Amino acid sequence: MRIAQVAPPFVSVPPPRYGGTERVVSLLTEELVRRGHEVTLFASGDSSTAARLITTVERALWQEAGCRNPLPFVIMTLGEAYRRAARGEFDVVHSHLDYLAFPCATLVPTPTVTTLHGRLDLPDLPRLYAQFPTMPLVSISNQQRAPLPAARWAATVYNAVDTEQLRFYPAGGDYLAFLGRLSPEKGVAAAIQIARRAGLPLKIAARMPLANHDDPNVRADWEYYQSVVAPLMREPGVEFVGELGDAEKPTFLGNALALLFPIDWPEPFGLVMAEALACGTPVVARRRGAVAEVLAEGMTGLIGESDDELVAGCRRVRQLDRAACRAEAVRRFAPAVMAQAYEAVYRGLVEEDGGVPPVRSMTAVAMRAT
Amino acid sequence: MRIAQVAPPFVSVPPPRYGGTERVVSLLTEELVRRGHEVTLFASGDSSTAARLITTVERALWQEAGCRNPLPFVIMTLGEAYRRAARGEFDVVHSHLDYLAFPCATLVPTPTVTTLHGRLDLPDLPRLYAQFPTMPLVSISNQQRAPLPAARWAATVYNAVDTEQLRFYPAGGDYLAFLGRLSPEKGVAAAIQIARRAGLPLKIAARMPLANHDDPNVRADWEYYQSVVAPLMREPGVEFVGELGDAEKPTFLGNALALLFPIDWPEPFGLVMAEALACGTPVVARRRGAVAEVLAEGMTGLIGESDDELVAGCRRVRQLDRAACRAEAVRRFAPAVMAQAYEAVYRGLVEEDGGVPPVRSMTAVAMRAT
Repeated sequence: MRIAQVAPPFVSVPPPRYGGTERVVSLLTEELVRRGHEVTLFASGDSSTAARLITTVERALWQEAGCRNPLPFVIMTLGEAYRRAARGEFDVVHSHLDYLAFPCATLVPTPTVTTLHGRLDLPDLPRLYAQFPTMPLVSISNQQRAPLPAARWAATVYNAVDTEQLRFYPAGGDYLAFLGRLSPEKGVAAAIQIARRAGLPLKIAARMPLANHDDPNVRADWEYYQSVVAPLMREPGVEFVGELGDAEKPTFLGNALALLFPIDWPEPFGLVMAEALACGTPVVARRRGAVAEVLAEGMTGLIGESDDELVAGCRRVRQLDRAACRAEAVRRFAPAVMAQAYEAVYRGLVEEDGGVPPVRSMTAVAMRAT
Repeated sequence: MRIAQVAPPFVSVPPPRYGGTERVVSLLTEELVRRGHEVTLFASGDSSTAARLITTVERALWQEAGCRNPLPFVIMTLGEAYRRAARGEFDVVHSHLDYLAFPCATLVPTPTVTTLHGRLDLPDLPRLYAQFPTMPLVSISNQQRAPLPAARWAATVYNAVDTEQLRFYPAGGDYLAFLGRLSPEKGVAAAIQIARRAGLPLKIAARMPLANHDDPNVRADWEYYQSVVAPLMREPGVEFVGELGDAEKPTFLGNALALLFPIDWPEPFGLVMAEALACGTPVVARRRGAVAEVLAEGMTGLIGESDDELVAGCRRVRQLDRAACRAEAVRRFAPAVMAQAYEAVYRGLVEEDGGVPPVRSMTAVAMRAT
């Protein structure tokens, strides 16, 4: 199939370090190319891919200093992607731009499917999605869908992780690992307290908050860091290892006893859980969002509500079978598994849409020669 | 003609108080209806119009407490407007959403013209506009175009003001009037100093900065207010009259000796200058942006570069003929004048685009029945 993958302009595909959405888009794109599809990737110019790359911004916006308005680049991305879609270049457009492609998607014959990578429990979204009731959507967990039950859910497709690079570490180690943003919802403060009560050392891998102090979210992250996280980091048994690149992540996760994931927000997927499992490392997590979907309770993870339950989980997580964690990760979160699921979604849309996209597209071209 | 006017969701059309773009959209919409056009206005539900109103958000977003993300509403507006455009409901779409309609506009047979209401000297815009080189644009002054000379400028159409409501005040008065935001670029601090040096009382009508402290622009406005404006406001001869409604504005402007407009930014139009002229009140202004286009120097305004020149202007502005100011405002900034200019733009687009929009639109409907 001729598939357009439309990525956001914030981080390169794949991202150098942090950037869950772009990492998943990269794994999907490369796997689809490997499977013989003709893939066009709309992404920042510092991306690298075996697909045809169409550059929407030279350098990913998060690499730039200061506060740069992303909207011009989103508009350029949409303009370029749908101009080509209208010319019949694709059989399907796969948008990773949240709801931003919806208006364009309704105006071309080529079907668009949108994977929603973020949380959906925001106040104005039900009204927005109600206005586009036929727009095909993919959720990254069933939990994620809960706030928008009436939308047109084509499938849940779990995110993949790089199961080759994240190889199996049969032995594991004796520390708890925390990997994620240093913001309250990711629970780094709870992780420090839980690890201490469980009597286990904790290693924290995280990016420091961004430099852009104009962004209220970024300011909130800094305030949280300075008032809550920094003092706790000085506790004995806590080690801060900074932000990890792709090369360092397998060692960090694979040599851990367990990943500690005491989040306190409706996490739509939780990519780091799948990454840990790929290395054979089980997860001790708080029951929020997609946690109970990504983990198989008692096999690949121990799930609790309270800090007490998570402390108890840390104490007995050594009993879980690391080989089973790895096997589950490969079975559910390998790139080929994700790509197969998306192929089924794409096929469904193309068939339902009338079957012969090139012909319909030629009609569109004849109708409006731009 | 069947015309869609697509307004932003921030302020109602017309706005209760502050809101230049929405005020102009309202005057244009009502005048086009009066002239027999079939106008559809996409705007917040608290708008009032003789046109068909299609509600994109119940209440204008600036009326809401807190920081509400405008993007869902922009997307809903675009979705609704272009869904109808694709069905052939309009002969022309007139977007006031900056560049946000561009991707949709390229995908439907109906032509879209965009009036740009803001400044265009921002770093990423040349690249954006270069990607949409055929998109017809209207500038609100010739000066405004300067940063984007290669774009497709269909016309400059000056903003209109309500020349009936803003009636002629032949006598004027003896104070200088300042009307505008309390931000550095509008020059309220300079106005206070200039008025004092000219030995004239100054009345300031302005909205206090918005309540949303999460917005960096709003925070900057507050900091400026507290550190610079508030102390100056306590000077003798300075009177702060708060934010004016439509009913109070004619009296405030019409009873002034002159409007003092010592801006320090590339003002794309400067609606308050035209409002003052409509009341017969001449303008003393700094030569920035569109000032020398909106004012006829020596007839309706005195223009200077330095504060010294503006002080001198204030001292001799009494010599200008108030009747000439009123006559120029009616000749150049009456709603009918603006509507006629836009009619010519619309006609140009419809004719150039092939002439028979309903037929083309029916083709579009036949092609994609959604």
